Amino acid sequence: MTRTIVASATREIVIGFDQPFCVIGERINPTGRKKLAAEMIEGNFETVRKDALEQAAAGATMLDVNAGVTAVDPNATEPGLLVQTLQIVQELVDLPLSIDSSVTAAIEAGLKVAKGRPLVNSVTGEEEKLEAILPLVKKYDVPVVAISNDETGISMDPDVRFAVARKIVERAQDYGIKPQDVVVDPLVMPIGALGDAGLQVFALVRRLREELKVNTTCGLSNISFGLPHRHGINAGFIPMVIGAGMTSAIMNPCRPQEMEAVRAANVLAGTDRDCAAWIRTYKDFKPGEHAAPAVVAADAGGGGRRRGGREARRAALG
Amino acid sequence: MTRTIVASATREIVIGFDQPFCVIGERINPTGRKKLAAEMIEGNFETVRKDALEQAAAGATMLDVNAGVTAVDPNATEPGLLVQTLQIVQELVDLPLSIDSSVTAAIEAGLKVAKGRPLVNSVTGEEEKLEAILPLVKKYDVPVVAISNDETGISMDPDVRFAVARKIVERAQDYGIKPQDVVVDPLVMPIGALGDAGLQVFALVRRLREELKVNTTCGLSNISFGLPHRHGINAGFIPMVIGAGMTSAIMNPCRPQEMEAVRAANVLAGTDRDCAAWIRTYKDFKPGEHAAPAVVAADAGGGGRRRGGREARRAALG
Repeated sequence: MTRTIVASATREIVIGFDQPFCVIGERINPTGRKKLAAEMIEGNFETVRKDALEQAAAGATMLDVNAGVTAVDPNATEPGLLVQTLQIVQELVDLPLSIDSSVTAAIEAGLKVAKGRPLVNSVTGEEEKLEAILPLVKKYDVPVVAISNDETGISMDPDVRFAVARKIVERAQDYGIKPQDVVVDPLVMPIGALGDAGLQVFALVRRLREELKVNTTCGLSNISFGLPHRHGINAGFIPMVIGAGMTSAIMNPCRPQEMEAVRAANVLAGTDRDCAAWIRTYKDFKPGEHAAPAVVAADAGGGGRRRGGREARRAALG
Repeated sequence: MTRTIVASATREIVIGFDQPFCVIGERINPTGRKKLAAEMIEGNFETVRKDALEQAAAGATMLDVNAGVTAVDPNATEPGLLVQTLQIVQELVDLPLSIDSSVTAAIEAGLKVAKGRPLVNSVTGEEEKLEAILPLVKKYDVPVVAISNDETGISMDPDVRFAVARKIVERAQDYGIKPQDVVVDPLVMPIGALGDAGLQVFALVRRLREELKVNTTCGLSNISFGLPHRHGINAGFIPMVIGAGMTSAIMNPCRPQEMEAVRAANVLAGTDRDCAAWIRTYKDFKPGEHAAPAVVAADAGGGGRRRGGREARRAALG
């Protein structure tokens, strides 16, 4: 059984086929967040602290930490800033961390200070990347996210993406890194641009699990890029991709609709034993207390507020 | 390719692996609805009319019609009442209908008056049922729901349920009924009582599709029976079971959370071409306009109202 172990100083988490879905909180990342980037450059970590606490409270399994505040000479600024951010976050919450950077020196600096067993995010199939990151992954005995693109970019052919993933897993083995410590990101394309993006990723995840026997992850919200009501698409994607075998995702745990989908999928995949987490979370939930999502024009007649029907139809047969 | 064709007088619908999920509206059914039963006995069809219009407006693909108002001598009352109900519904909406009764005489009476190509709901693997229903299905050239239980009841062993389904498909073929006109209900158990009910049904649906090449259906809400916040479990189950290959369900289309899950799953399974139905339905949806579902204590910090993050992280790579 594939088990990827990540840990903070005090808490160990297993990512695996028989485990609840691992939610990697994506918020601590200045990419596309100008205000956060400006704060971090000034040495102001208030938003970082807030994001850490909120994501932990919302139920994140682990937290991704990225300090890429600038595209201009990141080698000079990013290692120090990433170390600082990691230290602040790990003092505040006891969740395992993911060290997220495209700068090798920043990843190494982060590995030196991160407690427990962090996840390195990420390596790709590019030669230069493999040679830079895999020795660090081996040296610090940590798991790594493997993104299935290489020098040629992201292939639109899922077979090529699978081949890149296999190459990374094999190269990792050459360095003495076990497949269970490689968490493959098969790359999720926006379904609005590529109509078979869903079918592609479901098939890829199944192959990665059955043939390479690796855990998987993805940048989840990318699936809904460009569409209206993205939360609804994300919340449909989560159970489907978990059903296909995905075991983690980099996502925003502060979005209730998505987290509800994760919790429901855990129940349905049998990883929330006795529905314990579901019942604990929703036992006092009252229908009508919160409006249902997306009551739209076409639905206005029904409204979803009515009860009844033959809810226990099949149960009655049993 | 398996294609189950159902039709009203004016509208033909295909149930199939490459088609949008077929939502069979369950509301017109007096089982467990005492008020509706009393009305129907009195010849008052106002609620039936309302349920027909609301389910059509909410996006049902077809409507189930059941007139089982009493357990006492249904043979005397049900045929006439089912005919009356079917006629009222088919005058009001142009959706294909499912003739739902456990009384053979009622099914036959319904088949005589239903326009187009209705679905018969249902036959089981019980000898007496097979011999009563299959000749009618052949005579009227209609598709039938095959529930995978027999004289011994509902087996807890999914292999036995598969074997019962195969027996019904084979018996149907003996009568000259094609497998594409048998829509198998593998029976969904409540996950709160049976922890692997989800995994069981996903595996069964895959086998039914790959080995018997039949369409499938289920009484959807049964999965969440006995759990708090059932809509959340149902809405997680829908994408997972569609991902496993299920092609229809008997469910309540007037529940927005469940219908949103159906629409999202259609997008992700590639059966909503160019996301056209999704965009049409949600194009004016505004985040925050409707509260997110199930903001619970543990989540209160996050709230899900915040925006930002690296939403287009992967998209930017492409």
